[in-house]
Amino acid sequence: MNIQEVIKKNKLEPLFTQGTFGIEKESQRILKDGHISKTDHPSEFGNRNFHPYIHTDFAESQMELVTPPLESVEEVSRWLMAIHDVSLQTIPEDEYLLPTSSPLYMPADEDIKVAKLDRAKDVAYREYLVETYGKRKQMVSGIHYNFEFHADFIKALYGQKTTDISLKDFKSRVYLKLAHNFLRYQWVLTYLMGASIETKPEYFQENQIPEDIPDGLIRSLRSSKYGYVNNEDVFVSFESVEEYVKTIGQMVTDKKLIAEKEFYSNVRFRGGNSAQEILKNGIAYLEFRLFDLNPFAPFGITTEDMKFIHYFLMYLVWTETEVGQEGRAIGKKMNHVTAFEHPHSESTYKEEGIQLLEGIKQMLVELGIDTSIVEEKIAAFYNPSLTISGRLASIPREEYYKWVLDQAKAYKAEALERPYALRGFEEMELSTQILLHDAIQKGLHIEVLDRHDQFLSLRYQDHLEYVKNGNMTSLDTYISSLVMANKVVTKKILAKEGYVVPASKEYTQVEDALRDYSLFEKKGFVVKPKSTNYGIGISIFKDGANETNYRKAIEIAFEEDTTVLVEDFVHGTEYRFFVAGDETRAVLLRVAANVVGDGEHTIKELVAIKNNNPLRGKNHLTPLTLIELGKIEQLALDEQGYTVDSVPEEGTTVYLRENSNISTGGDSFDFTDDMHESYKKIAVGVAKAMGATFSGVDIMVDDYRIPPSEENPGYGIIEANFNPAMMMHIYPYQGQGRRLTLDVLGLLFPEMEIKGE
Amino acid sequence: MNIQEVIKKNKLEPLFTQGTFGIEKESQRILKDGHISKTDHPSEFGNRNFHPYIHTDFAESQMELVTPPLESVEEVSRWLMAIHDVSLQTIPEDEYLLPTSSPLYMPADEDIKVAKLDRAKDVAYREYLVETYGKRKQMVSGIHYNFEFHADFIKALYGQKTTDISLKDFKSRVYLKLAHNFLRYQWVLTYLMGASIETKPEYFQENQIPEDIPDGLIRSLRSSKYGYVNNEDVFVSFESVEEYVKTIGQMVTDKKLIAEKEFYSNVRFRGGNSAQEILKNGIAYLEFRLFDLNPFAPFGITTEDMKFIHYFLMYLVWTETEVGQEGRAIGKKMNHVTAFEHPHSESTYKEEGIQLLEGIKQMLVELGIDTSIVEEKIAAFYNPSLTISGRLASIPREEYYKWVLDQAKAYKAEALERPYALRGFEEMELSTQILLHDAIQKGLHIEVLDRHDQFLSLRYQDHLEYVKNGNMTSLDTYISSLVMANKVVTKKILAKEGYVVPASKEYTQVEDALRDYSLFEKKGFVVKPKSTNYGIGISIFKDGANETNYRKAIEIAFEEDTTVLVEDFVHGTEYRFFVAGDETRAVLLRVAANVVGDGEHTIKELVAIKNNNPLRGKNHLTPLTLIELGKIEQLALDEQGYTVDSVPEEGTTVYLRENSNISTGGDSFDFTDDMHESYKKIAVGVAKAMGATFSGVDIMVDDYRIPPSEENPGYGIIEANFNPAMMMHIYPYQGQGRRLTLDVLGLLFPEMEIKGE
Repeated sequence: MNIQEVIKKNKLEPLFTQGTFGIEKESQRILKDGHISKTDHPSEFGNRNFHPYIHTDFAESQMELVTPPLESVEEVSRWLMAIHDVSLQTIPEDEYLLPTSSPLYMPADEDIKVAKLDRAKDVAYREYLVETYGKRKQMVSGIHYNFEFHADFIKALYGQKTTDISLKDFKSRVYLKLAHNFLRYQWVLTYLMGASIETKPEYFQENQIPEDIPDGLIRSLRSSKYGYVNNEDVFVSFESVEEYVKTIGQMVTDKKLIAEKEFYSNVRFRGGNSAQEILKNGIAYLEFRLFDLNPFAPFGITTEDMKFIHYFLMYLVWTETEVGQEGRAIGKKMNHVTAFEHPHSESTYKEEGIQLLEGIKQMLVELGIDTSIVEEKIAAFYNPSLTISGRLASIPREEYYKWVLDQAKAYKAEALERPYALRGFEEMELSTQILLHDAIQKGLHIEVLDRHDQFLSLRYQDHLEYVKNGNMTSLDTYISSLVMANKVVTKKILAKEGYVVPASKEYTQVEDALRDYSLFEKKGFVVKPKSTNYGIGISIFKDGANETNYRKAIEIAFEEDTTVLVEDFVHGTEYRFFVAGDETRAVLLRVAANVVGDGEHTIKELVAIKNNNPLRGKNHLTPLTLIELGKIEQLALDEQGYTVDSVPEEGTTVYLRENSNISTGGDSFDFTDDMHESYKKIAVGVAKAMGATFSGVDIMVDDYRIPPSEENPGYGIIEANFNPAMMMHIYPYQGQGRRLTLDVLGLLFPEMEIKGE
Repeated sequence: MNIQEVIKKNKLEPLFTQGTFGIEKESQRILKDGHISKTDHPSEFGNRNFHPYIHTDFAESQMELVTPPLESVEEVSRWLMAIHDVSLQTIPEDEYLLPTSSPLYMPADEDIKVAKLDRAKDVAYREYLVETYGKRKQMVSGIHYNFEFHADFIKALYGQKTTDISLKDFKSRVYLKLAHNFLRYQWVLTYLMGASIETKPEYFQENQIPEDIPDGLIRSLRSSKYGYVNNEDVFVSFESVEEYVKTIGQMVTDKKLIAEKEFYSNVRFRGGNSAQEILKNGIAYLEFRLFDLNPFAPFGITTEDMKFIHYFLMYLVWTETEVGQEGRAIGKKMNHVTAFEHPHSESTYKEEGIQLLEGIKQMLVELGIDTSIVEEKIAAFYNPSLTISGRLASIPREEYYKWVLDQAKAYKAEALERPYALRGFEEMELSTQILLHDAIQKGLHIEVLDRHDQFLSLRYQDHLEYVKNGNMTSLDTYISSLVMANKVVTKKILAKEGYVVPASKEYTQVEDALRDYSLFEKKGFVVKPKSTNYGIGISIFKDGANETNYRKAIEIAFEEDTTVLVEDFVHGTEYRFFVAGDETRAVLLRVAANVVGDGEHTIKELVAIKNNNPLRGKNHLTPLTLIELGKIEQLALDEQGYTVDSVPEEGTTVYLRENSNISTGGDSFDFTDDMHESYKKIAVGVAKAMGATFSGVDIMVDDYRIPPSEENPGYGIIEANFNPAMMMHIYPYQGQGRRLTLDVLGLLFPEMEIKGE
């Protein structure tokens, strides 16, 4: 079959360009001096046995970061970024991830700690590797690139088949072609993306640079014959799936390999836990393993390079050629030759390389895809210093280690710059970003079901849970959210359960409200529209009001809503209690936007100083909000006799807002440890009365140190909120942050024994 | 204290006019000939032992209908109406509720069946009553009126007290005054509202009319000394709570009463299960027991009379007088005198009556309350034929029984007229009305937490549940409703679980959609704007389309929305599956508004005939909707070559709509028993995948008789809906109704063992 024609004739271009992608990336944890860390894999990452994203490779210091299978390389990039953020934020403060494949300093053999795994067979396998290959070779890190065509593409191709073949076998045939051609042309990738340029005696178990390695820098030690390859007596056939399975089995039988997974080819067939499964089900996808870490890329590989690799792989199927066994053997040699070349030298196979890339370019043109990425690669064939190894080789040798370490530090600094966010998921709500952070850290299988709608699925083994907006889960009942959404119902229920709730009356007619004036006359009360939330239309009378003011307040409230509440005023300070399950996990005091005078700076300047806090920002991108100096704030200042240019006395607090919302520049103070236990218990009781697992209970408390008593309850429940905000507790303005997202995960997955902080 | 002054000075008028009210009303079940029914209390009412609203009084045939305590007489009226609706819809088809206090025909003693109660002590008590008073007296029914002042009113009064007294004792004092004055002036109520006008030998155990009863009609046998009163040797003091408790205790000790509850005063102190509790806690409220059933009122008493009684009670506290023991004794005699008066005769105490009513009127004027109700009562003192007994006496004697029976039948007909609604709660959604109906019937404690928001609390013993909109409950998780609300997430989850879900792709650019043409080219597909619902902008290609038509469809869809979906077309007919728990409890086929021709009538006439169905109405007040003949319908006719004046051939179905919504006149056909079990199981599986207990699953089914197979699944899930509609299943256009509200109650309260139908 001429595949290009089939694709064009059947308009399969959109399906051909789709696929599933995944990256596995190894990295050594290092100290600031570049030496490899001797600490254990951080316990915060939970159990390595099941962690889908973060485990250890050969050495205890060698992290392996794995993305799930995803539908685009852009998506893979986002996940790589996120997993890096989590990793870099979790490893000890003085540790970094080495951005090169080869260690800067190879530890003494006795200092290389094999990963401390639980399962005996994992440990045994690593011990075998030490014996067979020595420890040093295992310390080199790389990237594996997994790729699968869209199932519908294979099916559509299959529909055009001219021979009698099953879909399973047909699919394997497509991947065999890809694998065959890859083995022939892999050297192009080594030329363009090789990046383990150093050769040093301590890299070799014999403490000596092998004689056939050229002096000075090379393109890729890792892709050379001294890289992570099997002994020369290992031969596995790629001719067919059957041959592959047969020969790999033979190698194991002959004890030339201890297990199938010891077969270190740059291409691996995937599709099950054993070669036998591949034989049964056919090849599901391919794994390409020859990529060095790119130190210029914060996550070891750039999106552009992932995209280029995709084009490269597409082309290997698109092309009419399919190389045979001989061609594959030539390809291997060419790759080794390329690996030994000096990074600034021209490729030995420049002509073939350019020809191949021109082929890719032509394919992209026919598919209507932008060709600029391929053009850059072509340019790198004309100018070797544009390759990754070339760029690395251009760095003065004496500055190279410092440069590598500076890269490592800069990448870590970037990951720590906005610890309240998770790069790769930045268009989601902050609370969802933090929840994703923690879910990645603890090793839950994550699927973002709807980014825009903050909808996640989380899975641990067979236990599946859905989460929306950070804490909307199966742990709350449908009706509990509806109860909390209805303030009248909430109050009725709480009052019936014996909680102190400010009594309120509802009116739909101004006259009815006026007729009841005497009911309120002498006590503190609040007049408010039933359904507004931002303080609009609310009048507060702390000690009663005369009839004129009462009437005015009623009329103002009726301008905002057709139903108006007149509610008892409760004395005290309002605190937010975050209840999770049977516990109040955080208590917060919110204070309206303010500055404290120092007798020197103007209010404008004080605001600017306060806004310098990196936690303050706009548009909910940060836990706290910038204080503005707009109309409302100026009005507030005016009422207190200030202007923005006033210089308040030292210690004087000047409020810029009446409402204490964090979203209008308010401050948040953690009171979790200060609040008297009895109020925390009340909050839990309120949540239980609502039937809620997660609830943000707003309580007015007279004195947070004094418990309620029979004569003086000292509190009043304002409301209970479903889907309560978490960020303000996690990153308060002052006081200890409370990692509530861990509580959410802990309650959702009790079997994982996740502890909140 | 001068209470009037205290009220005025402290502006307590709004509090004084508030209170808590409750009605208990007894009624005999009768047959159409007026004889008392011999059937058992219907089992549909569940267990009498705990039923809060519907039990039996003395006799098995004697229903006692009880409202909960409510905050206005209007509310009491609504509840009375609702409980009557439920009762009248539940008792056998040929039974009615007797609207008079006295039976029309007193059964022979052996035919009077004492209520079949479970508890031995209940049975023993009734046996004692039979022995002491005979059965016949017990067969007379009446109304008890419970009243409590607003707690804040008592507290406010207490705040103005001039003596040293506890709040509890103060409260009792207020109710003692009310009770004392009531005992003095109760005759006024007997004059105005007495309604057991007949005296007949069989009413008396001795089969003889006592000699001191005047011949002919009287105002009230039930309020006379031959009414439901204790033997003459029973004396209980009302002087103080202490005296009351002491004397009533003495009567029991002396075996003059078998129990406290045998004390049949027209006023009873309430506030606990025994007199001792009243002594401990004070009087909580009063029960007034002297009211005859008013046969002119469908529910035994009119709202106006309940209101008048309230004014009457208020006045007895408002007045400065408080009668002593002598006055109370006089009051009792006056009441008995009044009871014996002929309904058309002037009151012996006319002057006092008018004076009292003028006092009430004056009070209402001072409180700013409309006086018309009292004025009518004053008029009745000038014209006795305006009293209830007077009006009854005006009915020709020979027609009286027929008139009573006609009333009974009319009241039942009214209750059955709209069986899909519950009078008293008619502004709520129909499904909530039906749920309330069933909850009242089964004896759940109901509180309407928010009428407008369809929010109920239901309680059985200590088990409390909240329900909103008929089936939003604690049985569904918060996240399940959110999953169902998000169609994209729903599809992802269902596809992952292996259900057949039409695949769809979303586009925001015409070009992107056109580029993917080849993805759809050969299969059936639907092009539709993402968010329109009424078929606008939708193009359906059942077997693929050429590129021109595809482009046209895409462009049409983009005219309606910025996002367009191209979705797999699923063959078949759409059915709605209502899943409750582990079962599909109803399956419905919805068909667009249509008429079937008869070769005679015009379409206009056929619509009118079809609209005659009492289940069809407007504004969601009925289970089905009237078919309109508006623009959309005329357009639909036009497209089929009809006008409203066309006469379609016999058997031809003419559709007036393209969409099959019930709300636009569509028909609903029950398919529950016809649908193949396998699809019902699929629907349950879909609901489980959503985590839902209640879900309305829309499934396209190719042939409802043929189960799905490996090669041909024969179905496709369209969507799953939370809070699924119930009315269309309960009252379908054709086929068996499915009482889904009973399923809701059954799942919420498994311990009650409620069975759906």
